[in-house]
Amino acid sequence: MSEDETTQPMFGKVALIGLGLIGSSLSHVMRREGLAGCISGSARSEATLARAAELGLADEFSQDPAEAVRDADLVFLNVPVGAMGAVAERIAPALKKGAILTDVGSVKAAVIRDVSPHVPEGVHFIPGHPIAGTEQSGPDAGFPELFEDRWCILTPLEDTDPQALDRLSAFWRACGSNVEIMDPKHHDLVLGITSHLPHLIAYNIVATAADLEEVTESEVIKYSAGGFRDFTRLAASDPTMWRDVFLNNREAVLELLGRFSEDLSALQRAIRWGEGEKLFDLFSRARKIRREIIEAGQDTEAPNFGRK
Amino acid sequence: MSEDETTQPMFGKVALIGLGLIGSSLSHVMRREGLAGCISGSARSEATLARAAELGLADEFSQDPAEAVRDADLVFLNVPVGAMGAVAERIAPALKKGAILTDVGSVKAAVIRDVSPHVPEGVHFIPGHPIAGTEQSGPDAGFPELFEDRWCILTPLEDTDPQALDRLSAFWRACGSNVEIMDPKHHDLVLGITSHLPHLIAYNIVATAADLEEVTESEVIKYSAGGFRDFTRLAASDPTMWRDVFLNNREAVLELLGRFSEDLSALQRAIRWGEGEKLFDLFSRARKIRREIIEAGQDTEAPNFGRK
Repeated sequence: MSEDETTQPMFGKVALIGLGLIGSSLSHVMRREGLAGCISGSARSEATLARAAELGLADEFSQDPAEAVRDADLVFLNVPVGAMGAVAERIAPALKKGAILTDVGSVKAAVIRDVSPHVPEGVHFIPGHPIAGTEQSGPDAGFPELFEDRWCILTPLEDTDPQALDRLSAFWRACGSNVEIMDPKHHDLVLGITSHLPHLIAYNIVATAADLEEVTESEVIKYSAGGFRDFTRLAASDPTMWRDVFLNNREAVLELLGRFSEDLSALQRAIRWGEGEKLFDLFSRARKIRREIIEAGQDTEAPNFGRK
Repeated sequence: MSEDETTQPMFGKVALIGLGLIGSSLSHVMRREGLAGCISGSARSEATLARAAELGLADEFSQDPAEAVRDADLVFLNVPVGAMGAVAERIAPALKKGAILTDVGSVKAAVIRDVSPHVPEGVHFIPGHPIAGTEQSGPDAGFPELFEDRWCILTPLEDTDPQALDRLSAFWRACGSNVEIMDPKHHDLVLGITSHLPHLIAYNIVATAADLEEVTESEVIKYSAGGFRDFTRLAASDPTMWRDVFLNNREAVLELLGRFSEDLSALQRAIRWGEGEKLFDLFSRARKIRREIIEAGQDTEAPNFGRK
């Protein structure tokens, strides 16, 4: 009672289930902003857990996620989308009444489908997705600024407690993010076009290049500054995470892929028939979108992303 | 004769036909390294020419490229690939005997086809292509470091004078580039996969995103940090330049596009049938190529290209 209210952390105990890029970044920003009284961490692999301990990412560690969530006021599921259901089932009996359970998965409808059945009465499940990341993964990849000026989408269920939603929103804002509330199905379509399809295309072009007989891999690498190198960054992302995204956002991704392929066929036809005007018009439209992304603070205006 | 040999510029007069990103960067690096005794510049548009004069990109300017190449020892054609033939025809009568005529076009077989017929006896035509650039264009876009640690590909003809080839190679090395000699047709295929196809795919996905009815453009922009923003950089490149690339490297681009689409169909099928292992294996291969590009000094190792 003697403590000033402003020095109280936002949450007493926060559990991080999964200590990769997102989990470790959450730890760093919570430490910097004093958002958690205590952090508990869990990871499936012993190596990750040991490294997370070396880095001081949590105050207590357990390979058992149920152990880690005991008494936690806020629980983050930072595991691949395909693993969410099993983890939720495992931790369910240990969840504290009144706790907020959230996740950071890139797909929302499938996570709701897999996690909801396990959430005990009195626990507030609020699915979430911070639109932030890098191509790196693991406990060393995190940094406290990852979420700054990025959007975090929350997709509450129909019966979500407004007060719990406010508390989670405040948490993300304290991490530097803007919060947006969205319908889960719409989230999956929006992220399908802004994230999932771009990653799929990037993976695909890297595979196409690697398989060419007439051009060696060493040539592809040497001359990659012509554009190809940009795709390799996205394609260097965590394969498990992305496998799960495509398997769990199948419908939206297949629909978008169909449109992409249709558009590509039209472009191919314009090239074959030498329709210069059509190409020029299409290419001219893209500059406007780039400018708007920069104006919205979602990319740097420095040429070449500011790389040398 | 009293002047020390080391203070002599590499070429007496250098003509830059076209003063956009590449032309202006050539001017900056020639000034910094003292590679030209005098620079003359030409641009088709009066606005570009006026701006280039304000920036001091050349010592003399003319809207007439024939005027600009008079007495030049080295002539650079920095114009869109589709304009090379007409410019070559126009400057041909004014070219000095013994001069080196080169270009920086992204396609080589078509440039050779269009330019060669106009090259006068005694002029050394050596097609070239610096694998360097940014998404920006115009006389303000240039900077002297553009070519540093990048490759410059030269595609000499069968009867190219070895001494002229040596002089041009030395020029590019003085700009900070590594020089590679390549067959023009092979160049067009290598650049087809490392540059032309990536740009085409980037233009296409931006168009697909812009045309979706269910996702607004403002949503695409807000959540672009999920991956989409990377594609918009390539897609912000000069539309005229790229229209000409696709029209003039049609065969290679269509062949590569066919392979890309085949691979994409296989990926699409793997998603539809839930073949997780196939996806995982394909995604895992890409990390190796990314690492090799970084080791080869062709991209930064900083996460997210070092962007905030």
